[in-house]
Amino acid sequence: MPLAVRFFTVLGIMLLAGKFTGELCERIRQPPVLGELAVGILLGGSVLGVIPTGRGDPLTPVIHLLALVGVVVLLFEIGLATEFRTLMRVGPAASAVAVVGVAVPFLLGFLYWISPLHRPEYSVSGLTVTALFVGATLTATSVAITARVLADLSCTDTVEARIILGAAVIDDVLGLAILAVVSGLAGGRPLTVWGVGRVLAVGIGFLAVAIAVGLALAPRIFALIERMRVRGVLLVTAFAFLLLLAALADRAGSALIIGAFAAGIILSGTNQARTIEQQMKPVAEIFVPVFFLSIGAAVDLRVLNPLEPRNAGVLAVAGGLLVIAVVGKLAAGWAVPWRRFNRWAVGIGMAPRGEVGLVFANVGLTAGVLSRELFSALLVMVIGTTLVTPPLLTWALGRWGATMGRE
Amino acid sequence: MPLAVRFFTVLGIMLLAGKFTGELCERIRQPPVLGELAVGILLGGSVLGVIPTGRGDPLTPVIHLLALVGVVVLLFEIGLATEFRTLMRVGPAASAVAVVGVAVPFLLGFLYWISPLHRPEYSVSGLTVTALFVGATLTATSVAITARVLADLSCTDTVEARIILGAAVIDDVLGLAILAVVSGLAGGRPLTVWGVGRVLAVGIGFLAVAIAVGLALAPRIFALIERMRVRGVLLVTAFAFLLLLAALADRAGSALIIGAFAAGIILSGTNQARTIEQQMKPVAEIFVPVFFLSIGAAVDLRVLNPLEPRNAGVLAVAGGLLVIAVVGKLAAGWAVPWRRFNRWAVGIGMAPRGEVGLVFANVGLTAGVLSRELFSALLVMVIGTTLVTPPLLTWALGRWGATMGRE
Repeated sequence: MPLAVRFFTVLGIMLLAGKFTGELCERIRQPPVLGELAVGILLGGSVLGVIPTGRGDPLTPVIHLLALVGVVVLLFEIGLATEFRTLMRVGPAASAVAVVGVAVPFLLGFLYWISPLHRPEYSVSGLTVTALFVGATLTATSVAITARVLADLSCTDTVEARIILGAAVIDDVLGLAILAVVSGLAGGRPLTVWGVGRVLAVGIGFLAVAIAVGLALAPRIFALIERMRVRGVLLVTAFAFLLLLAALADRAGSALIIGAFAAGIILSGTNQARTIEQQMKPVAEIFVPVFFLSIGAAVDLRVLNPLEPRNAGVLAVAGGLLVIAVVGKLAAGWAVPWRRFNRWAVGIGMAPRGEVGLVFANVGLTAGVLSRELFSALLVMVIGTTLVTPPLLTWALGRWGATMGRE
Repeated sequence: MPLAVRFFTVLGIMLLAGKFTGELCERIRQPPVLGELAVGILLGGSVLGVIPTGRGDPLTPVIHLLALVGVVVLLFEIGLATEFRTLMRVGPAASAVAVVGVAVPFLLGFLYWISPLHRPEYSVSGLTVTALFVGATLTATSVAITARVLADLSCTDTVEARIILGAAVIDDVLGLAILAVVSGLAGGRPLTVWGVGRVLAVGIGFLAVAIAVGLALAPRIFALIERMRVRGVLLVTAFAFLLLLAALADRAGSALIIGAFAAGIILSGTNQARTIEQQMKPVAEIFVPVFFLSIGAAVDLRVLNPLEPRNAGVLAVAGGLLVIAVVGKLAAGWAVPWRRFNRWAVGIGMAPRGEVGLVFANVGLTAGVLSRELFSALLVMVIGTTLVTPPLLTWALGRWGATMGRE
């Protein structure tokens, strides 16, 4: 089959299956993103093989890049809906949540692996380095899942949502610093305060400079653009701006999604924000599901088959890691004793690990610090947090509600 | 640079450059598509090298597939804006235009190459087979350029537009039949009436069956879909339907763009047509420019450098072919003596050759029927028709106007 025909068929089936499973979830009062993840697993390489995941398949990078466009468009939409001043007001609370949510899972993961509970046969290199990697993989929140659930439940404009978003951004900056450190360790480089500080400074500095410059210049530039006559100029300029700022963020040592979020925050300060938001919606509806379907497709169901004797150890370790992952982030909900909000929702909202966790695990595997079994267990942990979050968060918000309010 | 970062950067620059050049064209009263083509050449492999065109580059297939999504979305939008009954009323006129527009350039091209004007050193295999290939490459209209110009000038709802669109669809069906025949000839297979008839029957049959079944079923199916609750279900279903019908058309021996056009025609018969049209617009604004920028990027400016002595012969042949290409299609405007409309606009509107012409030339090159020089000359002809159409069509419509009317 020619590549183009296969691409059209795969994308068409993905979107159709995702939407109809999403509808099913909607009817049983679950967020549609759960349906997209589930149908992604079904269409993925380990079951039906519709979504390409193999390295040699020429469609794999195409779907992967479209999925990335999906996640940056999602983060852009979130940034666009977030007023910068409102986000700043939750700054201290979000920082506390982020630091606790990174430190507790890291420590628990490290202690678990140096404790007698661990499996020495899964440690390839030194025990301490492996334990550091296990801890690091447990740190980074993937905000995409939570953001979708909050949007699905119309809770984007709540104190909880703002704390989770702010914390997730800080969390990503911390996560990148940790990644730089553990990659260095895996490569045999020593730990230096200077190295850690530099990575942190770049991450925070990029955000600060981009948002400061952007908020000052964007309103004037977009006022000019609105006066242009050619069809679709506002949407296309905003879309190109988000892509370019995401790319710039990555080049500057930050991350694609942080750049996209910053682009959204910047354009939220323009008079054209509502028009852009409205026109971006159909674009998001095409691209965003591709991201969630792809996450599902990356799941190898064979690793989860408990009847396979080789999987028993992996599943036991994965179970332990999953408990640590959720409990560690739940602790973050109690990091801000001086404010009142739904602590369970914030803790659960920070729970999903995603692409950053997968990046950590992949670096460890490539560097020979993680065995294939431990890598699989970490993968199961990442997927597990992703799958439990939508129903748990829906439940927590239904049980204790969300906090509206001026801040 | 990681692939994702390069992809974001390339796509961002393409969209931004395309939009701003489009604005420039708008200001000098030229259709924006001309700006996208021009800036595509500038960003293409032979000048700045921003848009990937090399075979080894992993981004080349990605941009190519996005461009294909662009062209099918464009044809879908056109189909959606076309009422089936109105299109049928121009059926006889469109058929006459298509047949004359295929026959005249084919004959002129064939005669040119067997005449003393041709260059025998450019014929690799037998003169007659090469001449047939030259003729065939001159036949197929690429409707995308014309459709964009008509949309840019708000002339989609005119008799001329409907005749051009109908003729272009018939033209594509004829073109595929010719392609099947000449490919067979290049492979040494004999010409049979049965073979030609079969290809024609499949092409026309697919369109007829798809539209008949679709027009009967789509209104009911989309009435059900509108009652679904999940966000974006209407747009995503329509988008998936267009991709899948395009893929099916290709598999059935027809072409991607014919399937996409049929999908548009089918959905134009539903109550949700206007909503789909409105939501598809932002999606089109992102994808469609990628197609036109890619066409521009495929142009190798070095072939056009007249100071290079090796190019002189190629450019002379290309010039001859370009004249035949335009004159041959202009004749089609006079194919319908019994009706009154802007004959120049219809003739010029049929002039652009695009992807189908490139496919023909590529088959000939691969089969060893065309020399590299003749291939380059055909390429220049294809590009030339594409570049002259927007200004000529704008001029012709400005000079003699378009025909409104019930039919």
